[in-house]
Formats: sequence, C-alpha cells, structure tokens
Amino acid sequence: MFSKVLIANRGEIAVRIIRACREMGIRTVAVYSEADKDALHTQLADESVCIGKAQALDSYLNMERILSATVASGAEAIHPGFGFLSENSKFAELCDKCNITFIGPSAEVIEKTGNKQEARNTMIKAGVPVIPGTKEPVMDAGRGKEIAASIGYPVMIKAALGGGGKGMRAVYDEKDFEKEFNNAQREAINGFADGTMYIEKYIENPRHIEFQILADNYGNVIHLGERDCSIQRNHQKMVEESPSAALDEKTRQQMGEMAVKAARAVGYTNAGTVEFLLDKNKNFYFMEVNTRIQVEHGVTEMMTGVDLIKEQIKIASGEHLAIKQQDVKLSGAAIEMRINAENPYKKFAPCPGKISDLHIPGGNEVRVDTAVYTGYTIPPFYDSMIMKIIVHDKDRRQAINKMKSVLGEVVIDGITTNRDFQYEICNNKRFETGDITTDFIAQEFPDFI
Amino acid sequence: MFSKVLIANRGEIAVRIIRACREMGIRTVAVYSEADKDALHTQLADESVCIGKAQALDSYLNMERILSATVASGAEAIHPGFGFLSENSKFAELCDKCNITFIGPSAEVIEKTGNKQEARNTMIKAGVPVIPGTKEPVMDAGRGKEIAASIGYPVMIKAALGGGGKGMRAVYDEKDFEKEFNNAQREAINGFADGTMYIEKYIENPRHIEFQILADNYGNVIHLGERDCSIQRNHQKMVEESPSAALDEKTRQQMGEMAVKAARAVGYTNAGTVEFLLDKNKNFYFMEVNTRIQVEHGVTEMMTGVDLIKEQIKIASGEHLAIKQQDVKLSGAAIEMRINAENPYKKFAPCPGKISDLHIPGGNEVRVDTAVYTGYTIPPFYDSMIMKIIVHDKDRRQAINKMKSVLGEVVIDGITTNRDFQYEICNNKRFETGDITTDFIAQEFPDFI
Repeated sequence: MFSKVLIANRGEIAVRIIRACREMGIRTVAVYSEADKDALHTQLADESVCIGKAQALDSYLNMERILSATVASGAEAIHPGFGFLSENSKFAELCDKCNITFIGPSAEVIEKTGNKQEARNTMIKAGVPVIPGTKEPVMDAGRGKEIAASIGYPVMIKAALGGGGKGMRAVYDEKDFEKEFNNAQREAINGFADGTMYIEKYIENPRHIEFQILADNYGNVIHLGERDCSIQRNHQKMVEESPSAALDEKTRQQMGEMAVKAARAVGYTNAGTVEFLLDKNKNFYFMEVNTRIQVEHGVTEMMTGVDLIKEQIKIASGEHLAIKQQDVKLSGAAIEMRINAENPYKKFAPCPGKISDLHIPGGNEVRVDTAVYTGYTIPPFYDSMIMKIIVHDKDRRQAINKMKSVLGEVVIDGITTNRDFQYEICNNKRFETGDITTDFIAQEFPDFI
Repeated sequence: MFSKVLIANRGEIAVRIIRACREMGIRTVAVYSEADKDALHTQLADESVCIGKAQALDSYLNMERILSATVASGAEAIHPGFGFLSENSKFAELCDKCNITFIGPSAEVIEKTGNKQEARNTMIKAGVPVIPGTKEPVMDAGRGKEIAASIGYPVMIKAALGGGGKGMRAVYDEKDFEKEFNNAQREAINGFADGTMYIEKYIENPRHIEFQILADNYGNVIHLGERDCSIQRNHQKMVEESPSAALDEKTRQQMGEMAVKAARAVGYTNAGTVEFLLDKNKNFYFMEVNTRIQVEHGVTEMMTGVDLIKEQIKIASGEHLAIKQQDVKLSGAAIEMRINAENPYKKFAPCPGKISDLHIPGGNEVRVDTAVYTGYTIPPFYDSMIMKIIVHDKDRRQAINKMKSVLGEVVIDGITTNRDFQYEICNNKRFETGDITTDFIAQEFPDFI
C-alpha cells in the first residue's frame, strides 16, 4: 500500500479523498492555488504545497507543477478526483513516465473511451447496445431517407462536425425528412464548411442511468448498481438517486451486465461509470464511459456500504478486488442533491462570497460532503458546487422526506444558493412519483432554464 | 399516526427526535428553559414553549408545565428522550390520565423494572440468569458463610440499604469471610442504622453488554443486537460499540434470546435496553432494563439500518412492529464516542462556555449528533455531553481508524472537551485489541479517574 498520496484537486472531493487516506493510514499531500490557502483541503492534509495562481490553468490544471510537487513530497501516487486532470490521458501518461501511480485507469483506456466514435465502435463489436444509427457518413438526403426508414422514426440528423445544436434536426415523420436533412446540411456547410451528416435514432425524453463499475488489474470487474441522474440543467446533473424508479430487476440486471461488458471491452481498471440512455420502453443505449470517480459516488456508497475511494486506492496499489458481484447488495434508497453557490433566479449565475453563518444538519443516514465552513470565502475561480447532501432511507418516499427535512434545516448565510430550488424539486409531483427524464427541469421549471 | 408531538427534552436528543418527526411529517413542539431560548431544538421545532427557569426542576423536570404545554399546543404525544422524565413512572401515568400518549413503555412497566429487587425476582422466575446471590436477607456471618460457599468465591457482601460503596466488601477467600462480613455489617449499622446484608457472586472485571429491544403493543418483541459499553468512568459510559469483541455468535444468540425473554417477562412495550454483565468465561447476568431510548442508540442504528426513534413513535401510535427478528442483520462495526464539555485534567469537571469556532467532520459513514453550533453558549445547568460521534465501517479495526480520523479533524474552540482523551483511548493497546472491561479506565488511565 502507498505510504503517501498527493491529491490533485480541491473542494469537497479533495477533503473526501484526504479522509479516506487518513482512515487507511496513508499520509496526504494537498496542492492548492493561491486562492485556496485557507481552504479545508489545504488545512486537512498532512502536507500542503502551493502550486500557483488562482486560475486553474496555473494550478489545478498545471501538470508540471503537480508532478513536481509529487516528486518533491515523495508521494507515490496521485488521486486526481473529478474534473481538472482526472480524465486527461496525457497526465496519466506523464505520471506513468515519472513512476507515479495515477489512481484511475491507464492513459490508454482514458484515451480510447474519450474518443466517442472509437468507444461506440468498440461497444458495437462487444455487443453493447448503442443508439442505432449510421456507421458511415451520409452525404445526400435520398440515402439518408433509406437509412432513417431502416432505423425507424423519430430520428436525429447530426452534422459530423456539429456542436451546440447547429446542424441538428429531430425528424418525427418520413414526409419531413428531405426538407430537414437539406436544412441541417446547409447549416452544417455554413457553420463548419462540411456537409457530412450522421443519422441516429432520436431517443425522446430519455432517462440518464449510469452504472458504477469497479475493476482490478487482474480482470475482475463488478458493477454496484445504477444511479438515475436524469434531473439535469444544461447537461449538468442536479439530483442523483438510486435505485432508479424506472428499472425493474430484470432490466437492472441486463444493464449491469452490459456495463460490465462495456468495461471489459475497453480493458477498464479502477472505478468508472458506464452511462446509458433509457427510453420509455426500457430500451437502453450506451452513451459513454466516465473514467473517474464521480460527484455522485456517495449515492452508491450509501446503497452498498462500499467505500469507492478506498477501493480506487486499493486497486491502484495492486490489490485484488475483494468484493464479488454476488456480495453487492443494494439496500433502501439514496438521493443526492447538489448545493451550488448560484442564483436560480438569475439563470443560475454563480454567487461566490463569504459564508457568514453555516449550519450543517447531521443525524441518522444523512451525509453531507462539503469543504466550506463558517467564515469561509468561496473563490470565484472554480465550480460553484459547494456541498452534496446525500440521504438514505428505507424507500424513495422516505428518502425524499428526509431530504426535505435536511434542506429545511441547512443554513448557508452570506451567499445565494440553489437550496430552495432543490426543495421545490422535492415538492414537485412528477419528482415525487419518480417520473423524471432529462427534460424534467425544462418541462417543470421552464422559467428557470 | 400522531399529527403533533411534544419533545420533553433538550440538546442533541431533542434535535434527533425533531428530525425524526419532520421526516415522518409530524409537527413538533419543543419545550425550553430560559437558558435554552437560543438552543438548536428551540429553533428547529415547529413551535416552542418556554416552560420555566434554567434549573431543570423548574423546567425539564416540571411535569405540570410540560403537560400544560402539551395540552395548550394540541400535541397528542410526548417523547421524553433520555434523562429528565424519561423513566419517571408518575409522569407516564399523568400523561395517560391527560389522554396524552407517552412515547415509551407503560407507567406500570417503568415502575416494575425500576424496582431492582422486583425486577430481579421477575427475571429469576422467567429463567433469565441473574447474578447468583441470596434471595433473603442475611443477618449473621455464619449463615452468610454457608451461602457464600454455595455461590462460590469471590463474593460481594452488600448492605441492603447501602450505597456509594458503604457496607460493601469483595471477598476472595473463605478464610476472610467472617471478618469482612462483620466489618461490612458494622459499617452498615453505623451508616444506615440497619445490619441487613445480601451476598452476591462478585463478577471480576466484567463487560457491560446491553441488548436493544423493540416491542409493540401486540406481543411482538425483537432484539437488535448488542452494544458493548464497558468503557465507563464512574458508571458513566464514554465509548459504546457493536458488535462486542467478546461475543461469539452462540453467546450473542443466547443473550439476545434472554433479552427478549426479559422484555416479555415484564410485558415490555416500545424501545428498551436489557443490560447484562458478562464475565471472562462468557457467563452473563441480567443487570437491569432501561425503559428509555439510550444515548448510544445510534450505534445500533448504524449496525442495523433501523431508525429507533421512528420505531418508538410508530409503536406508541399503535402500529404493529414491521421488523421480524430474522430481518435484523448486524453489518460491519460501529463505535460511538461521547464528546463532553469537561476537563479530563481536572477530574472531568464540566466546562460550559461559548463555542467560538466549530468544525464538524462529515463524509462516508460518519454520523455526528449534536445541538451545538458556532457561537452557541453551553449553559452550565445540564449534562456536559455536547456531541456524539458515531462511525461505521467494515470491521472494528477500520471503525477505530475512522474514529481517529474524525477526532483528529473535529474543531470545538472556546471550551475544553474530552476529545483528546477519547483519542488516547483509540490509541490504547488494550482498546485496540478489544480487551475492555468496566475497569478499563481505572486500570489504563489511573491518573484521570
């Protein structure tokens, strides 16, 4: 086992990792930017190294400085947390070259899964369902129409080089296909100087369902059940829960098996997440593999009793996975809500500032992961998420009641947060019944998006 | 189910009960003394009623005012928490007369189990092992010697009216019996004007092992495993854990069955605790039934996933116990350490005062129950316990590591606490190996008691 680990991150995830190391008897090295000299992670680690200016590019994204700090402190491994360098294959490769263990999958796996088209092809080969669509580029509407017919409507027309919705069209009926294809292609040519198009099945009102994976270096791969992360704003998750209200036991098992298959197909090691879209008929489609620990990992920890950060460290140090698939028991229901320093009434604009008063509720099956404290000033340079409230109870109904009780008790004075907005989600009828899709926020809170 | 409950307590247990009620959709009424107008429980409840001056006799022990507040607020039930009126049969009886549900066992059960001699006789009849000893008073050394021989040495000679160690003698050898008996009897006559003596088996270096009980009004009784509370100072528990390092599965099962038998023997309802002494040969002896929720109930909650406060409320409202004995699964290991506002270097003298800075660690499987906050002033009128840190992990070793990490992180500035002393217990070799008895503190920390 490592004797010293450097944590290349900040905020609550850095604190989370430091705590796991303390419990394992591993010494910790924090890195911090000039803006973070009073941060909790800086105070809590055994050693702390300032690695540069506030801007992440000068500090938390500065590979060279982080590697220097690692070598200088004698740390044998780096835990990258999430965000920043956590899915940067070049960084993983540099760690390897410096003889430092990167706590995560190999650079090769990060690279392979990061390339969406390559990952998609790998999954098709492995027999993991992907969203049906063209394997080859489409240049004209006639050929496109044939393909659309074979996929079945509705379909999505996408520009190969597209982004931000440009060159994209959803088509519900064959009679509209030609017109929409030509419009989309014209947009693509004007926008990206390239008329290469793809056609995919359009998944209406899907759910975002992801499976947590653990894989050691010896071919043992397990999943730890799903998280339903359908409640999102601009593809940013706001609420995550397990189990998903949409899954029956059979679908859960099928998806879990596919998640393991997907991980095996790319030679995955360490903790990861396989993301799927689930349609209303319980068809599911591979989206992508996230090659990091995720914000919402605590949901799975409360459901399974497995400490994912410790498992990451153990796997990276070369231990065999001690948990077998049949040992994984999902119990009760867990929900996480992210508390962000932002103003929902101003399009969720970040609201950094000083926390003048703070009360964090505790109690039975309530977990709050945060790095803020009374008197702490949230710097404006980083992500606005400042707290994760995770609750667990016997069932979804009781977990929601617990979440409402916690949200009602928490006090974060001095700054604006999305707490009240999250409380409104708890009170929303569709949320209460578990009827959530990725369009939930847009449909239920149209004035806010 | 009740629509409104009054909580006749203060501090962290009042907050704990308020939270449970919030989660169940029950409105709450707090009562508070003049010293507690800024207390967390006062702020957190839906309604708060001042019931008198700071001294508990004028407020938290004032039955009339509490009952008046209950009637005036329209609460249908009273949760007494622990301490104060929680084991006062007269209060339970008054509640009954006022048509208010007392959340706990009946006045009759409280009365019956509160009388040590009656409880002992009931247990003997029911076949629950008690500490072997005289059933009848002993007046002379000769008869005493016969009884001591039949019990087996060492024995304890006790004055019937004794207390505070007066009129008590442990005797290890028959040859010393007569002299010690006469000395003890003389002390008794001088001290209490009564020479009536009892003789009991003397249990050397025992463990304090207690079993959590739940019983509904329809004859369903279950136990939820044990708590080892051997680490005590002046009969005040300091550390509680589950499972006990001393119990094998067979002994645990036997003791659990006896705990259920004990509860049945007194017609117990609601949550309760059956306390045993365990000797080094794994013989166990009934001590007493505690007819309240206990400080250390969170240990059992983390081990079983059962919310004991909610179960208390459900049982009191007339619900059937939904948990069967075979559903109770003990998983991993949990430890609680009590943080008191006291100075271990001054014989643990209470240290009330203002908390200038507070940091409560959170994270995976860490539970902190407290009612203090930054800027809160601990009043000098009540118990010095201000925080319970409860951790859960895969096994005892890892739970201790987690506790050390939490104790190392917690910040309570402005007052003196026993935090460092608890940390020293974590580092103690005997504690580490699980070799703990009720003499642990006296033996390992002789300078402190």
